[in-house]
Amino acid sequence: MKLATRKNGTRDGELIVVSRDNTRGVSASDIAPTLQAALDAWVTTAPKLQLRFEALQTGNVEGEFEVDTSALESPLPRSYAWIDGSAYINHIVLVRKARGAQPPETLETDPLVYQGGSDTFLGPCDDIPWGDPSWGLDFESEVAIITDDVPMGTKAADAAQHIKLLMLVNDVSLRGLIPPELKKGFGFYVSKPSTAFGPFAVTPDELGESFNEGRINLDMLTDYNGSWYGNPNAGPEMHFSFLDLIQHCSQTRSLGAGTIIGSGTVSNVDRARGSSCLAEKRMIEKIDTGEFITPFMVPGDTIKIRMLHGDSNIFGTIEQTVVAVD
Amino acid sequence: MKLATRKNGTRDGELIVVSRDNTRGVSASDIAPTLQAALDAWVTTAPKLQLRFEALQTGNVEGEFEVDTSALESPLPRSYAWIDGSAYINHIVLVRKARGAQPPETLETDPLVYQGGSDTFLGPCDDIPWGDPSWGLDFESEVAIITDDVPMGTKAADAAQHIKLLMLVNDVSLRGLIPPELKKGFGFYVSKPSTAFGPFAVTPDELGESFNEGRINLDMLTDYNGSWYGNPNAGPEMHFSFLDLIQHCSQTRSLGAGTIIGSGTVSNVDRARGSSCLAEKRMIEKIDTGEFITPFMVPGDTIKIRMLHGDSNIFGTIEQTVVAVD
Repeated sequence: MKLATRKNGTRDGELIVVSRDNTRGVSASDIAPTLQAALDAWVTTAPKLQLRFEALQTGNVEGEFEVDTSALESPLPRSYAWIDGSAYINHIVLVRKARGAQPPETLETDPLVYQGGSDTFLGPCDDIPWGDPSWGLDFESEVAIITDDVPMGTKAADAAQHIKLLMLVNDVSLRGLIPPELKKGFGFYVSKPSTAFGPFAVTPDELGESFNEGRINLDMLTDYNGSWYGNPNAGPEMHFSFLDLIQHCSQTRSLGAGTIIGSGTVSNVDRARGSSCLAEKRMIEKIDTGEFITPFMVPGDTIKIRMLHGDSNIFGTIEQTVVAVD
Repeated sequence: MKLATRKNGTRDGELIVVSRDNTRGVSASDIAPTLQAALDAWVTTAPKLQLRFEALQTGNVEGEFEVDTSALESPLPRSYAWIDGSAYINHIVLVRKARGAQPPETLETDPLVYQGGSDTFLGPCDDIPWGDPSWGLDFESEVAIITDDVPMGTKAADAAQHIKLLMLVNDVSLRGLIPPELKKGFGFYVSKPSTAFGPFAVTPDELGESFNEGRINLDMLTDYNGSWYGNPNAGPEMHFSFLDLIQHCSQTRSLGAGTIIGSGTVSNVDRARGSSCLAEKRMIEKIDTGEFITPFMVPGDTIKIRMLHGDSNIFGTIEQTVVAVD
């Protein structure tokens, strides 16, 4: 099934069920007022949401409406945990080169994750605030999972059952602020502003064999300013799967229902696949020509992120414009 | 006024108002079911909560009960943002020495903050899980604020209005896991497990002149295994005040209502004041004798954290025992 959150003037929006073709929606607020509430009681809410989804698939449902993506919040408009991995080795190597830093020695054995701000997410079509050219504003096209409660010490082999929903991410990044912030040693805080998620949170069964062993084996399609920018496959080169990331994140603590875990920027070694962020392309330019050529994002720039499963735009489209803040 | 959250089998507990002497409580769930809900609509809920507090102060109130701290959650049992600063220079210098790292060059000009896990807090009397001796389990006695919505770009001069509540923190830390985790460059994630907060969240007016310019000018009292461990003052040596920390945290994003910002481990240059974590004491031992002497926490160890405002145990007591996980 597909779930989404409709803007309704509240902080957490209204939970809706969406048809497989993304066109029709119906409120699920009688089952659970918000997606977080649904996740808090998933064992009881999921079967009811599934029934409503099936009803919507097989015919008209009372109260159904046409889905307008721009009227949606991110599936979780705010969450209790947003942990972003960096599971594509090619991305780590290129981006660290770009900022003159070495990849960690444990690159292939110990996952990289950071805890991101989760109190104020952007909706999938919300503007991206731009404060200053020194920010070096960049997008990052990623995939993410939403978990239920994960006990401390969960192993990768037992982790699949905890993956309840999948969605897209634009992990907005401020490249100009990352080096001084990381140099202090405490993580990214000021250099990772509010993140946006794709409109539809989708249960793994909707992807069939394209979701396998904790990896989404589909192309991550990014358009930048209306042109193709990248189509790397999110599957095989995801060095640490979502199962590995769950094991990593739950080593020393349990994870609460509604925890979002991101894959990190989807990236393939094959350059013909393009990129999922500006920093990578800039580094390739630097390697090839000695110069960074592509500038970072400026007001008016647009970014479009989606994933096709067959003909289906399975997670819907992130479609954002950069806008200067006052 | 004083607010707290009573365990009631739900994830967010029940909001209660507590008498100034910490002994009597009454439900406020008719005003707001949870503290997060109260903070989400603070302009309307705060005056009602204040009235209930005053009623409780001046006489008996229907439904009042004796407050049992062990039956309380942390004031926010989970939150959308837990950002911990490290505002006491003495702590930064000692702890970095202890792990052979340099303080950042911007030590006195640019605050250090990390984003902590906020999906599963421990209650003020909940056991601290201990997994392994290699964890190097430590406590950190801190103070924290809870904010309302803070717009992006808020300056320190305008920040005081956003501080709605104050409370204590035990920022549980895994010293054995911090160096390898920080070496990867992405922050503390696995080395900072679930945090505990003091039982009572208190409005700034309750502290009178002891809360001034974003600093709590009271002694941070820590007992470890039943003995005095430290009483550093939390005020003057807090290099960056909570006003500075709000400015820092809101540079590139707005902060959602219910954001918790911590001070970092309270620490004074005067050694007679003791310490607020084991890592500092160990470093002092190393400087003085060449050896680390004090071991990290093991199952059975107890930690007690509180602050006296005159005779009043203003925030209540964090009182936890270390217990091995299965």
